[in-house]
Amino acid sequence: MGTEDPTAFSESHPMNGGDGVLSYARNSWAQRGAVDSAKQMIQQAIADLLDIEKLKLESSHKFQLADLGCATGTNTFFAVQNIIEAVDAKCKLYSSKHWNNSQSLGLEYQIFFNDHVGNDFNTLFRSFPVLWQYFAAAVPGSFYGRLFPKRSIHFMHSSNALNWISRVPKEVVDINSPAWNEGSIYCSGTANKVLDAYSTQFKNDIETFLDARAQELVGGGLMMLILAGLPDDVLLCQTLIGKSYDILGSCLVDMANKGMFSKERLDSFNLPQYYPHLDEMKEVIPNNKYFSLERIETTFGPSPRDITSNIEMWASLLRSGLEGIIGDQFGNEIPGKLFECYSKKHAENRFSFDEVKDLIAFNIVLKRKYS
Amino acid sequence: MGTEDPTAFSESHPMNGGDGVLSYARNSWAQRGAVDSAKQMIQQAIADLLDIEKLKLESSHKFQLADLGCATGTNTFFAVQNIIEAVDAKCKLYSSKHWNNSQSLGLEYQIFFNDHVGNDFNTLFRSFPVLWQYFAAAVPGSFYGRLFPKRSIHFMHSSNALNWISRVPKEVVDINSPAWNEGSIYCSGTANKVLDAYSTQFKNDIETFLDARAQELVGGGLMMLILAGLPDDVLLCQTLIGKSYDILGSCLVDMANKGMFSKERLDSFNLPQYYPHLDEMKEVIPNNKYFSLERIETTFGPSPRDITSNIEMWASLLRSGLEGIIGDQFGNEIPGKLFECYSKKHAENRFSFDEVKDLIAFNIVLKRKYS
Repeated sequence: MGTEDPTAFSESHPMNGGDGVLSYARNSWAQRGAVDSAKQMIQQAIADLLDIEKLKLESSHKFQLADLGCATGTNTFFAVQNIIEAVDAKCKLYSSKHWNNSQSLGLEYQIFFNDHVGNDFNTLFRSFPVLWQYFAAAVPGSFYGRLFPKRSIHFMHSSNALNWISRVPKEVVDINSPAWNEGSIYCSGTANKVLDAYSTQFKNDIETFLDARAQELVGGGLMMLILAGLPDDVLLCQTLIGKSYDILGSCLVDMANKGMFSKERLDSFNLPQYYPHLDEMKEVIPNNKYFSLERIETTFGPSPRDITSNIEMWASLLRSGLEGIIGDQFGNEIPGKLFECYSKKHAENRFSFDEVKDLIAFNIVLKRKYS
Repeated sequence: MGTEDPTAFSESHPMNGGDGVLSYARNSWAQRGAVDSAKQMIQQAIADLLDIEKLKLESSHKFQLADLGCATGTNTFFAVQNIIEAVDAKCKLYSSKHWNNSQSLGLEYQIFFNDHVGNDFNTLFRSFPVLWQYFAAAVPGSFYGRLFPKRSIHFMHSSNALNWISRVPKEVVDINSPAWNEGSIYCSGTANKVLDAYSTQFKNDIETFLDARAQELVGGGLMMLILAGLPDDVLLCQTLIGKSYDILGSCLVDMANKGMFSKERLDSFNLPQYYPHLDEMKEVIPNNKYFSLERIETTFGPSPRDITSNIEMWASLLRSGLEGIIGDQFGNEIPGKLFECYSKKHAENRFSFDEVKDLIAFNIVLKRKYS
């Protein structure tokens, strides 16, 4: 809603649009792993937790589903299809129990695809599956604010989006602050004050996110959240992502030294991303008056060694997600040169990627309490 | 819905995207006149016909509104604002009667902006009013098919969109048919068989449109349709639009003669637009088991003489609406040259525009029966 102007409380860094070689649509195969690994959990959660009677699905004939942070596809279509199939299966089971037949309930699905206003929704629409079995709608705006009317959604899904926090904590890019993140473009985990600032922002964001969703979900509605995180003894700088961001940061330093942009511009840049540890997740996703925590599981994503066997492909994946934010900060001519430098340096430092630690994925299922 | 693939039953010719000098967003001022003239009718219809109790607005707190054929703005925002203000006013009146205060009912508005999959929704989203007081969603697809779940919309609005029929009748571009529209690119009204073919297509389309809307509107929901039409004794070729299309057609003949595309390609081209007479409208918008016809009024739009005082501006307006369909048929290099030719020929034939007849606008209000 405009009264809660997304730009006022949340930075917008859309994934690369279009469907070219540098598009997010063609470079989101790593994120796909997270969607696949969550498939079974979604199916089980719907089988166990979806209460067809209390949701009055038999009389309303409508099932409304939202994917938050959908980008431009195609992962969002797989996720949506998973959920629809699981709801269909549950409905058939319900019919066979109550009506002694295995008909579906004739539910009509309405799917809301959400992402920032700047997301390339045109590409999303044009890449819809040929036979999509639902009514589709795109909802522009930050999910760190309200997106839907009260009690209007039965199922919320968000995959790999909540790692993007709503903004970079101000203090980490303030050279006068003790939390200044000197010499780094991300929350590597090595500087405690930086980590605290990011962690606080993440927690506040999740709280804001859950407050909004609590209003939008119907009582008994379900929410599946998938986000990447860190095993307890791992810092982000020890992972593939962290090592890649270190190289990117080093390339940016080189470019600043060559005078392609000012050192101040570099100092004022950090990535608004956070990868929480399990204990943080447990703290931030509470049982409260709105939600019951039904499941929280951790899984491993695709092995980084598989991902980085092709540096160009990995660089394209990074670029598809970061080009927008880097272009906004340094100018649109920078990302091309930056990722050239990245590929070169990554190849030179290939050995350092032999020892990277794996990220984990949190798969979380929440149920909106009836109230 | 994909199962009713829009391309299977409806051609898609989106208005020009973006916000450049040739964009629809900057060239839709003539259509704006229709929106303004309907403003008062919308307000009155909502005041008289919206039944807050039967719609259960007090308990649901939601009001769902769709604009069908929204293009890229900004007219759609004005129309939506009109409707919201009228519903708000009605709610306040209701409160003051029932609760002796003039509070609003705290309704949350959800607005669905619909147009073809190929519409430039990115531009639409980026041109949202700064303070938009509603939850916005874009719905891609042809309105000659289902767009929303059953009984999910309280108010439907469509302005200047239903003149685009779902397809050109096949026979008018078939040189072996008696209804072949020889030497013309549109339904000028002079050839009876052509007129019949277009009129039949229009009536079928409106029927399809109404069938879909009957399912999607809640009982008691309202629909406001605005479309351009012809006074009883006027043919389209006597209007500004018709004379402009004659010039466009003549330019296309010139270009075919120069070998810029084949004569066959020209022969297979007609515009999928229809401008009905009042008696046709009355026939096609019936009182039936789904809808009651509450209002049908005709108004005049802005005077053509005002519009064509600036030929370049008028040519830009035409181009913003037709560039897509002409590019699809003849190639993307054609529209630029075509509208150059257009401006020149229009200037040479300026005198013939002194005698154009006015179009009228139909403003129609339908109410979905309770069932």
